[in-house]
Amino acid sequence: MNSNRTPTIGVFDSGFGGLTVLRALIQRLPQARFAFLGDTARLPYGSKSRRTIARYAAQSAQFLVQEQGAEFLIIACNTASALALDAIQDAVPVPVLGVIEPGATAARAASRTGDVLVIATDATVQSHAYAAACRAHGLRALEKACPLLVPLVEEGWTDHPVTEQVIRIYLDELNAEAAAAGLNPDTLVLGCTHYPLLRPLIEAAVPSGIRVIDSAESTAETAQRQFGESFALSAAGLDIVEPEIHCFASDSVEKFERLGSRFLDRAVGKVKLVDLGG
Amino acid sequence: MNSNRTPTIGVFDSGFGGLTVLRALIQRLPQARFAFLGDTARLPYGSKSRRTIARYAAQSAQFLVQEQGAEFLIIACNTASALALDAIQDAVPVPVLGVIEPGATAARAASRTGDVLVIATDATVQSHAYAAACRAHGLRALEKACPLLVPLVEEGWTDHPVTEQVIRIYLDELNAEAAAAGLNPDTLVLGCTHYPLLRPLIEAAVPSGIRVIDSAESTAETAQRQFGESFALSAAGLDIVEPEIHCFASDSVEKFERLGSRFLDRAVGKVKLVDLGG
Repeated sequence: MNSNRTPTIGVFDSGFGGLTVLRALIQRLPQARFAFLGDTARLPYGSKSRRTIARYAAQSAQFLVQEQGAEFLIIACNTASALALDAIQDAVPVPVLGVIEPGATAARAASRTGDVLVIATDATVQSHAYAAACRAHGLRALEKACPLLVPLVEEGWTDHPVTEQVIRIYLDELNAEAAAAGLNPDTLVLGCTHYPLLRPLIEAAVPSGIRVIDSAESTAETAQRQFGESFALSAAGLDIVEPEIHCFASDSVEKFERLGSRFLDRAVGKVKLVDLGG
Repeated sequence: MNSNRTPTIGVFDSGFGGLTVLRALIQRLPQARFAFLGDTARLPYGSKSRRTIARYAAQSAQFLVQEQGAEFLIIACNTASALALDAIQDAVPVPVLGVIEPGATAARAASRTGDVLVIATDATVQSHAYAAACRAHGLRALEKACPLLVPLVEEGWTDHPVTEQVIRIYLDELNAEAAAAGLNPDTLVLGCTHYPLLRPLIEAAVPSGIRVIDSAESTAETAQRQFGESFALSAAGLDIVEPEIHCFASDSVEKFERLGSRFLDRAVGKVKLVDLGG
């Protein structure tokens, strides 16, 4: 279905939070064709089991590769990256990049003490994927599930006193746990693609000296390093053009169109409804 | 699969909030065999489209009737009752009872002014099923979506200052809208099976003179009236026994077992995992 010769990057999320990753990708690879799929019929993944998430994510990845001709796949969903990266890699014959490893790389670059905090969904935390990825980089990581933050973002309360309080409650608990564990954290990883929209409130709530990082930017950087060459030729001699973005959702396309621009920071355009068979 | 001669009542919800309805049913029909299914792999229904909800609900209803031998079906989910009652009735050959009509009946009995308020999920409100059911009873209803309440209950914050504030914000908005519309409401319907767990906070937040009702009790009463005769014979001569309850979930059975007892007010026992093919 990809009629031109520009390679397609498939970007997948359970909802549209992953548009924050797409936003970072567009800045680094503006000449690519992007196909973004939000599996909105079955979100949120964050409260589901590994088995179910793996099945849903594999179906979604197959849609992007088989139907949209994606030659590279970015899993712009921390939960799916944490629990289903292997299942996705098994399901499609193209390179697959998740957001966990780039997040751990960014934490490694940011931290001097070697102790980092991670906030994420229930399922991501229970997988301990961030702790494992951080450990591989010589970091100690303490993870905390913050299940109310995604609903607060989706309610549009991104700058609301209630959200501020909820963030403070979660971060106070996390800091107390870090102190009890003898950690000296200087970095907080936003381990969910919804959380960048809460970045101002989160930065106001963290103790001074703690740097907040999200994995979107780091993922885009890794993608540019891994896939960027494929775009060098097709981009040669071209002026900077508007990126080609195609958005798909398994449900609620109106909501996607309405809320998606907040995450993407530009209009998402017409979102097409797809049936993933769930 | 129903080996004894006691008729089985199938009870269905997208999650386990519907256990509040099961609790009311057990009190009225303790001699029944109950099969409860929570479609936890695909929850929440409240943010999804009618088409998707209808498909999921029909599959769930078929499981209860075909696999569990349910002879009566209670849709203990406001969203599925609001958007998919017809689809469920078409999908199974047994009587089906939703929670919307009993909720409207209870509102009719409670209200003297004829003006009622309804709080529910996004999808239930957008369907305007409560407004239509209330209108049929000669009531005027004003509905409001409260999307943060389900996540707050699931976080366990049923008696928390943040939840208290969120409830006040939603109810203040609703009361302002009612005043602007020239309504004089004296009844508030809890149009979501999670909300009875917030009843103390909600009752503290409503203006005096407004009565809070939930449809669980009213649904159980209607079920007793409609199906009760079927149990008269099998119960004759029997002492009151522990009700026979079988719980099924399409995902996260551990979470169901852990949180379900809050809703059911007794242990839910072993929850069996089922694949609804989604």
